[in-house]
Amino acid sequence: MADRLRAAVLGATGLVGQRFVSLLARHPWFSLEAVTASERRVGKRYGEAVEWYIDEPFPDEAAELELRPTRPEAVRDADVVFVALPKEVAAGIEPELARMGKIVVSNASVYRMEPDVPLLNPEANWEHIQLVKVQRQRRGWSGAILKVPNCTTAVLTLSLKPLLDRYGLEEVYMTSMQAISGAGFAGVPGYAIVDNIIPFIKGEEEKVVRESRKILGRLEAGEVRPAGFRVVATATRVPVLDGHLESVVARLSKAPGGVEEVVEAWEGWRSLPQELGLPTAPERPIVVRREPDRPQPRLDRRTGRGMSVVVGRASLPLEGEPLLRYLVLGHNTLRGAAGTGVLIAELYYKLVEQVF
Amino acid sequence: MADRLRAAVLGATGLVGQRFVSLLARHPWFSLEAVTASERRVGKRYGEAVEWYIDEPFPDEAAELELRPTRPEAVRDADVVFVALPKEVAAGIEPELARMGKIVVSNASVYRMEPDVPLLNPEANWEHIQLVKVQRQRRGWSGAILKVPNCTTAVLTLSLKPLLDRYGLEEVYMTSMQAISGAGFAGVPGYAIVDNIIPFIKGEEEKVVRESRKILGRLEAGEVRPAGFRVVATATRVPVLDGHLESVVARLSKAPGGVEEVVEAWEGWRSLPQELGLPTAPERPIVVRREPDRPQPRLDRRTGRGMSVVVGRASLPLEGEPLLRYLVLGHNTLRGAAGTGVLIAELYYKLVEQVF
Amino acid sequence: MADRLRAAVLGATGLVGQRFVSLLARHPWFSLEAVTASERRVGKRYGEAVEWYIDEPFPDEAAELELRPTRPEAVRDADVVFVALPKEVAAGIEPELARMGKIVVSNASVYRMEPDVPLLNPEANWEHIQLVKVQRQRRGWSGAILKVPNCTTAVLTLSLKPLLDRYGLEEVYMTSMQAISGAGFAGVPGYAIVDNIIPFIKGEEEKVVRESRKILGRLEAGEVRPAGFRVVATATRVPVLDGHLESVVARLSKAPGGVEEVVEAWEGWRSLPQELGLPTAPERPIVVRREPDRPQPRLDRRTGRGMSVVVGRASLPLEGEPLLRYLVLGHNTLRGAAGTGVLIAELYYKLVEQVF
Amino acid sequence: MADRLRAAVLGATGLVGQRFVSLLARHPWFSLEAVTASERRVGKRYGEAVEWYIDEPFPDEAAELELRPTRPEAVRDADVVFVALPKEVAAGIEPELARMGKIVVSNASVYRMEPDVPLLNPEANWEHIQLVKVQRQRRGWSGAILKVPNCTTAVLTLSLKPLLDRYGLEEVYMTSMQAISGAGFAGVPGYAIVDNIIPFIKGEEEKVVRESRKILGRLEAGEVRPAGFRVVATATRVPVLDGHLESVVARLSKAPGGVEEVVEAWEGWRSLPQELGLPTAPERPIVVRREPDRPQPRLDRRTGRGMSVVVGRASLPLEGEPLLRYLVLGHNTLRGAAGTGVLIAELYYKLVEQVF
Repeated sequence: MADRLRAAVLGATGLVGQRFVSLLARHPWFSLEAVTASERRVGKRYGEAVEWYIDEPFPDEAAELELRPTRPEAVRDADVVFVALPKEVAAGIEPELARMGKIVVSNASVYRMEPDVPLLNPEANWEHIQLVKVQRQRRGWSGAILKVPNCTTAVLTLSLKPLLDRYGLEEVYMTSMQAISGAGFAGVPGYAIVDNIIPFIKGEEEKVVRESRKILGRLEAGEVRPAGFRVVATATRVPVLDGHLESVVARLSKAPGGVEEVVEAWEGWRSLPQELGLPTAPERPIVVRREPDRPQPRLDRRTGRGMSVVVGRASLPLEGEPLLRYLVLGHNTLRGAAGTGVLIAELYYKLVEQVF
Repeated sequence: MADRLRAAVLGATGLVGQRFVSLLARHPWFSLEAVTASERRVGKRYGEAVEWYIDEPFPDEAAELELRPTRPEAVRDADVVFVALPKEVAAGIEPELARMGKIVVSNASVYRMEPDVPLLNPEANWEHIQLVKVQRQRRGWSGAILKVPNCTTAVLTLSLKPLLDRYGLEEVYMTSMQAISGAGFAGVPGYAIVDNIIPFIKGEEEKVVRESRKILGRLEAGEVRPAGFRVVATATRVPVLDGHLESVVARLSKAPGGVEEVVEAWEGWRSLPQELGLPTAPERPIVVRREPDRPQPRLDRRTGRGMSVVVGRASLPLEGEPLLRYLVLGHNTLRGAAGTGVLIAELYYKLVEQVF
Repeated sequence: MADRLRAAVLGATGLVGQRFVSLLARHPWFSLEAVTASERRVGKRYGEAVEWYIDEPFPDEAAELELRPTRPEAVRDADVVFVALPKEVAAGIEPELARMGKIVVSNASVYRMEPDVPLLNPEANWEHIQLVKVQRQRRGWSGAILKVPNCTTAVLTLSLKPLLDRYGLEEVYMTSMQAISGAGFAGVPGYAIVDNIIPFIKGEEEKVVRESRKILGRLEAGEVRPAGFRVVATATRVPVLDGHLESVVARLSKAPGGVEEVVEAWEGWRSLPQELGLPTAPERPIVVRREPDRPQPRLDRRTGRGMSVVVGRASLPLEGEPLLRYLVLGHNTLRGAAGTGVLIAELYYKLVEQVF
Repeated sequence: MADRLRAAVLGATGLVGQRFVSLLARHPWFSLEAVTASERRVGKRYGEAVEWYIDEPFPDEAAELELRPTRPEAVRDADVVFVALPKEVAAGIEPELARMGKIVVSNASVYRMEPDVPLLNPEANWEHIQLVKVQRQRRGWSGAILKVPNCTTAVLTLSLKPLLDRYGLEEVYMTSMQAISGAGFAGVPGYAIVDNIIPFIKGEEEKVVRESRKILGRLEAGEVRPAGFRVVATATRVPVLDGHLESVVARLSKAPGGVEEVVEAWEGWRSLPQELGLPTAPERPIVVRREPDRPQPRLDRRTGRGMSVVVGRASLPLEGEPLLRYLVLGHNTLRGAAGTGVLIAELYYKLVEQVF
């Protein structure tokens, strides 16, 4: 294997694809070699075909890449393939890529709940990466599929992990206020969302319920035993460009010794990605703001280059009950998609392949 | 008493004041005689002094009224006085008006929790109006102070009342997404709220907790015994002009026989204001939308001329648990302020004075 | 011909289609009999198939209409057909309908510049309706095609007409700030327009240039001689739901005797639709606001039920030059589309058919 | 004079003040020593007193600075004083500071039109800095007052300068679409601007008219002879956070040899700040975008770290006429305020003091 790993992005012109390209264009370990798009854009230069709408400068390194068709054989030269495709398209391509020996790091929701597919929010459950062995054994693949969680779930589970470890979790009530970018560039019409909220995102609540229990589950004998807490999730879409804000009430198994104790549990929490110094890992996975009016999406979504989640307004509202109330914010296309995707790939090469 | 009751609005140029003026300008029972404002506007005609920003046509009937100072003696000629003032200003004026014999219907938060002051969301607790007698006895007033609830609480308690009656209530977890108008015309800077959410509204959560228990409490021996359920409230401000949306999880005392049963309980519910045919009472206090993506603030806030609350997305998310999830929307300056104020006055004159 | 004329709306589920349905559902002359949509919705009831997003209550009268396919033979029973279709679809259907004897009132841009097709902004050029005779002669149709102007042009030309008549026009410099609804429900992605302006609308500037000269041209010997003034148009899209605002500098042929004289020319102006009392004609085609900060889209777009244009900030900025500066606002899907469409039909039946 | 110049910011907690602090905190020549605020914040640490709302990370270097009162004697230790105060407050302070020997670089509008005060948009009129000599002679000051232009004017004049030099200018028609931040943090209520445009900004149009002629005027015998072109300006406020977009039609003195020639004139243009390599000077003062739909405020306002203006959509719309149409965008609190302020200070120390 070469000095730098060759990376491809499938679906490189969408919002998540643009984030992948932005993160990979100057990555210390990966070299972005291939980008793909839908048929009508194939053959064009990335720099001219993409409508660059994200809040990062366009990476000139990617400008000259020629858009390839979104097919397995088109990325034969890649070591690692990042997938930012609709689930229907991803479903057919990903197993084929894994069979070809590719490391497939995918943001598509398909296969997330397969027992032998790791669903990784690295700081929360890096050890699930061992499922790769099971997957290869069972499927006979030389590559592997690794999944990025649903965006809302990625933000939520990061905030829950230290709570689960320290206090145990019984129930989680969550209402999300999700950014427009979560639906992709053209997913939410301007006429629908200005001066409005849409209190429904198809399939989202189900994903939060089942994915959070898998992510925070325990790996035992080659299987993930889902965590036992129950989740009630209500997902809404708000007129915000980037950053999902989540209002959470968590019923803990035992009462904390005060809010400050919880805050310290969050603030002091580090995990393997921090210890390994993975390039995309934020210094602090969870940043706690003590001002009464934070986190705010526009002000806080870039915290830790979009890879930290920001927690605020923690309180124990019902005397004598182990009930914790807080808000948590995360960047939905970084921590909730492409950033976590790149972090997963870094974890894989460091831990499994031991390349770096 | 004359055919029509003479009404005054204190603080008539603000957003809630404008709603009062709009509702009273053509009211069948009340005749708008007086409007007041802060010093610098006194003496001007209402039509030239007000910046009419609400989504109702300006009522020409009010154009020629001369703005009076915001002082008790300035509205000596009024029978009923509607108050849309900051609580600090209202605190000094309201008792004085009640002493002068005025019926004071107030949107200011001060005095809401006084034991002898009725806090009225008429469909939910019209019988609390009997506190007027206690109040007069205790204070020696010939008039009375009647209070409009906090806007978020007004919307919430209307949706809770049929649940409480039928199933009992143990706990309520609520996250609100509140409109800009809730802070008054200049209360939320444009630079703070575009592409953003502010997850904090000073004093709001405390109001929801205590007012909802008073409103849904039982009147016994001249006192309101607060309802026993517990409330965890998280209040946020979103880039929406009008209409508060609330995401609710209610732990009921006994399990409903299915979601449809709950929906029918809401839809079939009528109360005294409907039976009496009060002019401002909506035909249906609670409207249930069955589409998966409703209620939406922009589309639903005008339902029942802004006096209905709109419920959607009801579900029983945890099998075997009496836990009800839903969203409820209400117009914050109509059902949540001026509309309920006018409805309270109608109730008072119909029921207590028996004028109509 | 029956008492009431039978009307159909082609493309009834889009934003302009919804406006047509809303205006026709309770129209005194027209009876809405047929609505059409694209294939996947055919057969459904209008009330269940439409996503009603406009700021009018849904007209229950239209709820039970069954959606028909968008084909000429599907509206055989209609007298007048209102077209709210993309121009590519309209191009094939409209001539066929005219051949079948239908009065086709169309918002589609195709055929607007055909010499024998009247392009009508009724108050500005009602006399162009005489082109119907030329059209029938030339094409051998028993029906006719009548065109609604481009939305921006409709607003602009209404404000220009009294200026042209009184002072003559040399040049017009216009910058538009156009609402999201002008692109249709899903035409502008939320991610593109929040906290942004898009300074380009495909084909719009060309339409303003050529259509304004046709509309304000003179009918001579069965032909429209375009007005001679020149137009420089810059079109932008802004985060506003409804209402196009236009900043105008007009070089007049002779200098006005002061701004007040111009204001009076606008305010006093009435035209044939007002004299005939056509149901959809606003009392005043041009409303002038004298406040320094008007017109504002959200506050003024409903003026004259969306059929008046609102002018403000008129000034003569360069001493000694016949240069008039002002802003004009109009509701883009009422005055700029469906409202003017219905007004055209009213004019036709009153004037040409002399039915009413 | 020390190695690094000691800088103070008056009015450091407002939006423009925050930009000054952000630019100065890590500036190679200036050392930020003092920040001032209004009375109620004096004595607090900057880091705790400021509500940091701009899209730059908070500069930790400034966190511990203690807020001083906004008075001349409070910044006695500064060499250069940057002023981000309302004009009424600035009026009394600035002459006093200049008398004390301070270099006062001010964003306040007061004194901008004084004949001996340089109004500097450095790339456009750096040579006006010679007025400092006149000012000192006339006033007997050892310091000096240097003025930053009005934000809209700064953006406009940068785009006009190469046109004036090459083709001459007769008339300029400009409509601005200005960002919310132009009015300061709380200057535009959220309720006024969501789903709306306010077509009026007090005093703005007059500033554009007179300041643009001064900036582009010629320095002769110690006086600025205003440029002779006439300006018609219409200023509007739009729901955009940062970035003023301006739609311009310029009547040139002689016709360009085609649009491409004009584009090259803009793109090739460099001025003294670029030649001197001033730290805050953008590499290219004018960036031309060739896509049909640019510049867009959200996508382009950060070009050249907010110091470039971005031009697009240039055309010669009227055949045979020397009329140029284009749009220009600039960051209103960087190029239009604090960024230009810092650039002026750099120019002064390099050119007049020859310190660097």
